[in-house]
Amino acid sequence: MSLNKIYVVGMGPGAYEEMTVRAVKTLEECEVIVGYTVYVDLLKEHFPGKEFMTTPMRQEVQRCRMAFEAAATGKKTAMVCSGDAGIYGMAGLMYELGEEFPQVEIEVVPGVTAAIGGSAVLGAAVGHDCALISLSDLLTPWEVIEKRLLAAAESDFVICLYNPSSKKRSDYLKKACMLMLEYKKEDTVCGIVRQIAREGEEIQLLPLNELKDIAVDMFSTVFIGNSQTKIIRGRMVTPRGYQI
Amino acid sequence: MSLNKIYVVGMGPGAYEEMTVRAVKTLEECEVIVGYTVYVDLLKEHFPGKEFMTTPMRQEVQRCRMAFEAAATGKKTAMVCSGDAGIYGMAGLMYELGEEFPQVEIEVVPGVTAAIGGSAVLGAAVGHDCALISLSDLLTPWEVIEKRLLAAAESDFVICLYNPSSKKRSDYLKKACMLMLEYKKEDTVCGIVRQIAREGEEIQLLPLNELKDIAVDMFSTVFIGNSQTKIIRGRMVTPRGYQI
Repeated sequence: MSLNKIYVVGMGPGAYEEMTVRAVKTLEECEVIVGYTVYVDLLKEHFPGKEFMTTPMRQEVQRCRMAFEAAATGKKTAMVCSGDAGIYGMAGLMYELGEEFPQVEIEVVPGVTAAIGGSAVLGAAVGHDCALISLSDLLTPWEVIEKRLLAAAESDFVICLYNPSSKKRSDYLKKACMLMLEYKKEDTVCGIVRQIAREGEEIQLLPLNELKDIAVDMFSTVFIGNSQTKIIRGRMVTPRGYQI
Repeated sequence: MSLNKIYVVGMGPGAYEEMTVRAVKTLEECEVIVGYTVYVDLLKEHFPGKEFMTTPMRQEVQRCRMAFEAAATGKKTAMVCSGDAGIYGMAGLMYELGEEFPQVEIEVVPGVTAAIGGSAVLGAAVGHDCALISLSDLLTPWEVIEKRLLAAAESDFVICLYNPSSKKRSDYLKKACMLMLEYKKEDTVCGIVRQIAREGEEIQLLPLNELKDIAVDMFSTVFIGNSQTKIIRGRMVTPRGYQI
């Protein structure tokens, strides 16, 4: 049995209260907490006395290696991810890098990802089959993203877009909307959530043909309804199909 | 401002520790907890002194109406759902039924859905774009499900199947696999998780051409990898694409 253990922990959308009980307990038991600077800053006040290690954005590989090196010295270590540990998180990379650290055991602690947290803020945006697609082409060719957008739109999935925009990709949401409009109606109900479960949280509901002309920032998650999605009490609701 | 409030709470895969801090606090503050019998039984020991109301499976509309009626009397009420409150949960139906109870305010508290909880048990099964599809055709025509399976397979999503089987639908997983095999390779890495975060939790990894001949029960969630998914240390890992 390995004595060294590393936890990959999904911290949820941002607020301490959105973490699972297991995630909180895991972080309390760890000596070292490693993560992206912005997320670790959100945690510091809740986990005093820990050794915090951070790297900026785009240094994910270094960050993960740093975490393994801490764990390899015998310190119980957590690598934190915003949202879930797996979905667009570090769990996959940790398993890949873990090949270099066979003495360190890996455990993944799941968390509320933006598709779920944002859906709840909007009401019940994701109430049925859904497709999660990241618009970031840093690690995925745009052709693959395009194919997935078209396939998900044609087969009437609720679609949740991660990383809908960045400085270099300010027109990506528009490109995505134009693709989805090949199959989804112009008045398809859409929603934007900014800063899920953080200060400044806000939502916006609008039809797909207006979404295409909207600028969103990198703290936003975007939801495109299916053909049944509607607005009830100012919320975005995708029915599951019950007869009432 | 409304004085009556109802919370739709995702309780996560099953274990108390998989609930978010917010879900726990919400249930502690409520007087009435309503839900499907099996899930409410899991909660009873953790929330003593509450008034519990249950209905069996397939009585979702009655269950939701019961919850609104409790809330309408002024009792702070929670409707609990396994996994998330929105994804194949009751949040959508609650908004629809809420039209009959305009004096009751609705708040949705998200939770860890099986796609996330199961992915973590498997390792990092869902590490990239993914499609969540329920194989239950109780509320969705099979033609729609079929179309989504084909679209998601063709565009190389990781696919997570909810409700992969039931007594009446014992051949549905096989049907789904046959469809996905039109586009996904026979050796695509797949995983099954039973009883996520509950007693008896177990996993199985196997290729897609073997998955099609496997019998799963209704407590299982099934994961079909994308073309990059691999097995590392006996875990199912979908890389995000980092160069290491």
